[in-house]
Amino acid sequence: MLTVNAYAAPSATDPLVPTTIERRDVGPTDVLIAIRYAGICHSDIHTVHGDWGPITYPQVVGHEIVGEVVEIGPEVTRHKVGDRVGVGCMVNSCRECDNCRAGMEQYCLKGNVGTYASVDRDGTITQGGYSTHVVVDQDFVLRVPESIPYEKAAPLLCAGITTYSPLAHWHAGPGKRVAVVGLGGLGHMAVKIAHAMGAEVTVLSRSLRKKDDGLALGADQYYATGDPGTFERLANHFDLIVNTVSAPLELDAYLGLLRLDGTMVNVGAPAEALPLHVFTLFGNRRSFAGSGIGSIAETQEMLDFCAEHGIAPETELIAASQINDAYARVLASDVRYRFVIDIATLTGSGEDAA
Amino acid sequence: MLTVNAYAAPSATDPLVPTTIERRDVGPTDVLIAIRYAGICHSDIHTVHGDWGPITYPQVVGHEIVGEVVEIGPEVTRHKVGDRVGVGCMVNSCRECDNCRAGMEQYCLKGNVGTYASVDRDGTITQGGYSTHVVVDQDFVLRVPESIPYEKAAPLLCAGITTYSPLAHWHAGPGKRVAVVGLGGLGHMAVKIAHAMGAEVTVLSRSLRKKDDGLALGADQYYATGDPGTFERLANHFDLIVNTVSAPLELDAYLGLLRLDGTMVNVGAPAEALPLHVFTLFGNRRSFAGSGIGSIAETQEMLDFCAEHGIAPETELIAASQINDAYARVLASDVRYRFVIDIATLTGSGEDAA
Repeated sequence: MLTVNAYAAPSATDPLVPTTIERRDVGPTDVLIAIRYAGICHSDIHTVHGDWGPITYPQVVGHEIVGEVVEIGPEVTRHKVGDRVGVGCMVNSCRECDNCRAGMEQYCLKGNVGTYASVDRDGTITQGGYSTHVVVDQDFVLRVPESIPYEKAAPLLCAGITTYSPLAHWHAGPGKRVAVVGLGGLGHMAVKIAHAMGAEVTVLSRSLRKKDDGLALGADQYYATGDPGTFERLANHFDLIVNTVSAPLELDAYLGLLRLDGTMVNVGAPAEALPLHVFTLFGNRRSFAGSGIGSIAETQEMLDFCAEHGIAPETELIAASQINDAYARVLASDVRYRFVIDIATLTGSGEDAA
Repeated sequence: MLTVNAYAAPSATDPLVPTTIERRDVGPTDVLIAIRYAGICHSDIHTVHGDWGPITYPQVVGHEIVGEVVEIGPEVTRHKVGDRVGVGCMVNSCRECDNCRAGMEQYCLKGNVGTYASVDRDGTITQGGYSTHVVVDQDFVLRVPESIPYEKAAPLLCAGITTYSPLAHWHAGPGKRVAVVGLGGLGHMAVKIAHAMGAEVTVLSRSLRKKDDGLALGADQYYATGDPGTFERLANHFDLIVNTVSAPLELDAYLGLLRLDGTMVNVGAPAEALPLHVFTLFGNRRSFAGSGIGSIAETQEMLDFCAEHGIAPETELIAASQINDAYARVLASDVRYRFVIDIATLTGSGEDAA
């Protein structure tokens, strides 16, 4: 066992605090990663607050992890010491179900093993990336291309793949009109990726407050959903709507924006049930879908795509001591567009280097 | 103008009665059809009862129409006198919008002109097929293959195409597991067509009351949705669910039956909004979609497919005087599986030949 520094939530309501946690010994197919940077995802906050159900505390979160391989198990073939690597939202899966065998382990029918707050295959609760080190099976470790700086790579592991996967699956590309609902951590990556794929990109945001940003990120158009005229103007317009907003939306209004055979896909998930009129789906043969992260193979494809197209998230680098402030700012939508923790500042209980 | 015999609803609550209506003169591109048979669709009943909004009375319904061409306009090229033809749910569209130009006039962005209770392009209200004759633009008239008897062809024009279209669009075929929810007029056609396409077909019905029928129609399996064990047994199982039930269902339960990239498509439309948990769509990247009838080209394809595969609906032939009784039986789900009116029995006010 390896004792490592980390930042953990002691309860659903207390601020995160420096602590130490145990990492398992490096097994035959494991990789030990010295973490350099970890992104802060809104899911981290939902999880520690217990918004998605009760969890066990203390809990370390963080599933946008990049760093360097410092040790490998004897059977590891996919990575070597010194490699630049990343870990996203999952660290294992059953590997036996239909979906795992189809290379779609994110949809493992037994539930993939989440990077944090999940029951690992050894029965322990997984602990995430706000930590100096992590031990992960080689098959769930990604290669980070040289051209992507570590701190820019971190948010790709969740925000990047979560938006890349539906954009690729539903064929965003030349001639396709894509709307991105919400311009936050996920939304700003969706805009960049859809633009790089060649689609015509429209941002739908509550107000025009971030319009200049949206256009600079690659959007062709930007509309305020607070303006009812937007829904008239853009009726029957989009091939694909990627909804990154977890708050409940008026589904029928957004679905009405889809043209023939258009799909609205949610990557944000409100906890409550949303009302939907089936008649809205009849028009234009519309579909409403969900998409969760992406497979490991697709995550690698996304990293390579971002390297090739020079795509990187907009980030604000923080020290570990600023995590709680960052959480407050994420909840206030006051981040453009992703906080990334410099793990070098995470030096152990009470001795934060920041 | 041509005065013809018909059966009309005088109000939302009174029984249908024999009457006469006017048909327009045969225009340059019109076809005059002597109707032989008309199917009774549940939509007819919803419409005359005002369930889908107020309508103008008296109203003649019926959009499963077959008969013989008896006169054509001077510019008609697609049909000739004596041809066996059919008319389905629409009799025109704008022909200019993106969807019409894409050959998908059922999704006309200005609204296609319904065969009844719709505003025609000349401003009159369209009157349906419970009538001896109808005048329809040649482009919305289908050829009925010789091998399909007239009375068996009628229900194909709505029940047939409404189920064929989603089955074809979502690729029902060998290796695909298709569920059909509800074994009524639409459901029994969905079973026959999906089976002919080579899919593995499962009927999901409230009880096992019609199980023998379902298996005889071509289903491989038959489960009762009244048994909660059905939803456990079939979790993550289907590629495609065609829901023919207009009554509200518990969407999350049915969506949970979809395997990776599965789609549930409604062809029945409850008037009320249904609650849906987006989290259900995340699992297996599921989709929920709607589908309305089919294009004219696809309707012809469906008729030819049915002729080729020897597919015909199960019908119960009635005289015009039995229409009101038939409505009561449809509402009581007491029909296996489609009533078809013998239009020869529709001889005018008060002189029903039946």
